[in-house]
Amino acid sequence: MNRQERYEHGMKVLEQIDGEAGQRVVNSLADISPELGHQVVAWAFGDMYARPELPPRERQLVTLGVLTALGGCEIELEVHVNAALNVGLAPAEISEALLHSAVYCGMPRAINATLVAKKVFAERGLLPLTNAG
Amino acid sequence: MNRQERYEHGMKVLEQIDGEAGQRVVNSLADISPELGHQVVAWAFGDMYARPELPPRERQLVTLGVLTALGGCEIELEVHVNAALNVGLAPAEISEALLHSAVYCGMPRAINATLVAKKVFAERGLLPLTNAG
Amino acid sequence: MNRQERYEHGMKVLEQIDGEAGQRVVNSLADISPELGHQVVAWAFGDMYARPELPPRERQLVTLGVLTALGGCEIELEVHVNAALNVGLAPAEISEALLHSAVYCGMPRAINATLVAKKVFAERGLLPLTNAG
Amino acid sequence: MNRQERYEHGMKVLEQIDGEAGQRVVNSLADISPELGHQVVAWAFGDMYARPELPPRERQLVTLGVLTALGGCEIELEVHVNAALNVGLAPAEISEALLHSAVYCGMPRAINATLVAKKVFAERGLLPLTNAG
Amino acid sequence: MNRQERYEHGMKVLEQIDGEAGQRVVNSLADISPELGHQVVAWAFGDMYARPELPPRERQLVTLGVLTALGGCEIELEVHVNAALNVGLAPAEISEALLHSAVYCGMPRAINATLVAKKVFAERGLLPLTNAG
Amino acid sequence: MNRQERYEHGMKVLEQIDGEAGQRVVNSLADISPELGHQVVAWAFGDMYARPELPPRERQLVTLGVLTALGGCEIELEVHVNAALNVGLAPAEISEALLHSAVYCGMPRAINATLVAKKVFAERGLLPLTNAG
Repeated sequence: MNRQERYEHGMKVLEQIDGEAGQRVVNSLADISPELGHQVVAWAFGDMYARPELPPRERQLVTLGVLTALGGCEIELEVHVNAALNVGLAPAEISEALLHSAVYCGMPRAINATLVAKKVFAERGLLPLTNAG
Repeated sequence: MNRQERYEHGMKVLEQIDGEAGQRVVNSLADISPELGHQVVAWAFGDMYARPELPPRERQLVTLGVLTALGGCEIELEVHVNAALNVGLAPAEISEALLHSAVYCGMPRAINATLVAKKVFAERGLLPLTNAG
Repeated sequence: MNRQERYEHGMKVLEQIDGEAGQRVVNSLADISPELGHQVVAWAFGDMYARPELPPRERQLVTLGVLTALGGCEIELEVHVNAALNVGLAPAEISEALLHSAVYCGMPRAINATLVAKKVFAERGLLPLTNAG
Repeated sequence: MNRQERYEHGMKVLEQIDGEAGQRVVNSLADISPELGHQVVAWAFGDMYARPELPPRERQLVTLGVLTALGGCEIELEVHVNAALNVGLAPAEISEALLHSAVYCGMPRAINATLVAKKVFAERGLLPLTNAG
Repeated sequence: MNRQERYEHGMKVLEQIDGEAGQRVVNSLADISPELGHQVVAWAFGDMYARPELPPRERQLVTLGVLTALGGCEIELEVHVNAALNVGLAPAEISEALLHSAVYCGMPRAINATLVAKKVFAERGLLPLTNAG
Repeated sequence: MNRQERYEHGMKVLEQIDGEAGQRVVNSLADISPELGHQVVAWAFGDMYARPELPPRERQLVTLGVLTALGGCEIELEVHVNAALNVGLAPAEISEALLHSAVYCGMPRAINATLVAKKVFAERGLLPLTNAG
């Protein structure tokens, strides 16, 4: 694949997983760092997400763990909470994953991530959760 | 103690230390992750803060150090700057603790935490500090 | 449940998931901070891991993401790579989860975690991986 | 140099590098932690930045790397993207430095820093970049 | 004070607080970055620790919180667990501070810091703790 | 370029910059995560380092800043201190970059990185530095 084909391949994966929220982040980079936008699409999605060794649902669980632990990634968490819903995680499973992370990265990071999930769930009409512990 | 008693015990500790600010965080979790709210109250406050091995004033100094170093915890720092005042730390002592942290986690984290303290102190009519270095 | 029962309940969960590696960490805390050991067992495993909202396999994926992103958690990663194997993740799935995390927390954290996994896999006679991408 | 002279020396360095943006941060600390403001000026700029062992341009590259990796330093990154322009880094070089950091601290930190740079570049009429990758 | 006097003033403070462990770190920097050693002594101890706004005991509690949260600071934690003992914190108070930090930065960071404390306590003949929770 | 060509292109860049130290890291991944090794070579070096927008010397300054700030990256810092020497940074410039980072990420991270540099400089017969501040 050439550079353009790698981008197009990655964009198909990105659209399936992140939907519009991912597209908006890439667009926001267009006039400042198009190469960063290209790498998000062609490398992160085209090369990495597309690999069959883990299904999208399980990739999102890893991603939620990483972003929660890093902290300060509200923009990206919003994209990936949406992505987690898109690939089949139930809202209560997402909440549980964030709750679980509290053991390893502490209450504040877990609370911050949960409040981002709350925003996404609210936008998608998923609140209140009926089966969250 | 059963689950409900553990919660009530923790809530008494939380109210003494964090006051309304802590209550607001727990409330914000009610429709998205009630279990996370429960664990903040029953575990973090009921099990951990309630232990007599360190007095609340000294727990807050540790907490301020941890939250400043983590970064990206403005919501929680706001709660704990309030808590620090509630348990008897003077505004100038809180500022000094945050200044001190700069040695270990750098100027940006210390500045960010200090600006959170500034917001809390302003809300409580404590500015300008008269005896801050 | 009383304190002792909470500990015993948590220890059963810990043994199923972490096996001996987790037990060793708890033992290492006995003469310095038995309460930290107690909380790892009674709270982290008894209260959190034991919840049915996410299966152990998926909790381990979140845990691997968090520990990889935090960095400096080689001791805990070693426990949890073992745990990941114990709850049914294949070696190549674990490697893939760590590779995936590179997108979000960068190459060095992913490399460090992968070298911990390499140590665990070697000890369990699982190298070389035959189906790692 | 006495304390006041050290401050004045540091302020001259700060003004050359950070310009108004740095001055605003120091001013914001005046009523809450004047000592932190003093140390930013007298120590960080007077003692450290003023050293001839690395030119300002190269100090800013290190600074951008550190702030991007830390995360949650949007206020400080804004100051230092301005500073990077002030000491002669081209907008496309700044974007490239942030892109480069993605290899080591992951896509989210690089994206967040790039969006801060976008804000600064927009304020200074430097968008769109014509030669960004 | 001139540069040499600032160093000597800082060294007196360092010796009181950190003792030999701090001296060893400064010595280890002598042939690679004497200026970093100078700044640790003259700035961190001479300018910051020496301030009377918080007593050494309380500075150490903040320091333990910061270093535990940062992670990967085993060398520095070893110095500061020694320092904490030197300025009057009891072993069980140090253990409790590290336990407390688990709420905010998670179990792995708290365990790692506690194992550093265990090493220091063992060297000083302070194990097992008789009154640790 | 196909996958193999991308790898070979990246390996040429890696060899010029990292030399043997980088090669060793890639080799260490061969039996556990060959894809991670591939991505380090083909993506990090072939796609990113190879871009002409910043010269290797300046990329290393950013890299040193990021790795110092992250902490817990001793393996990677060792590679990149070697790389920094390979692309023309003088030992005293590297020490100065690490000293500079202390302002932003604190003394412990700067000390840890400096001790890694000390190890590399010692191996290459570059100690003591004659012109370090």
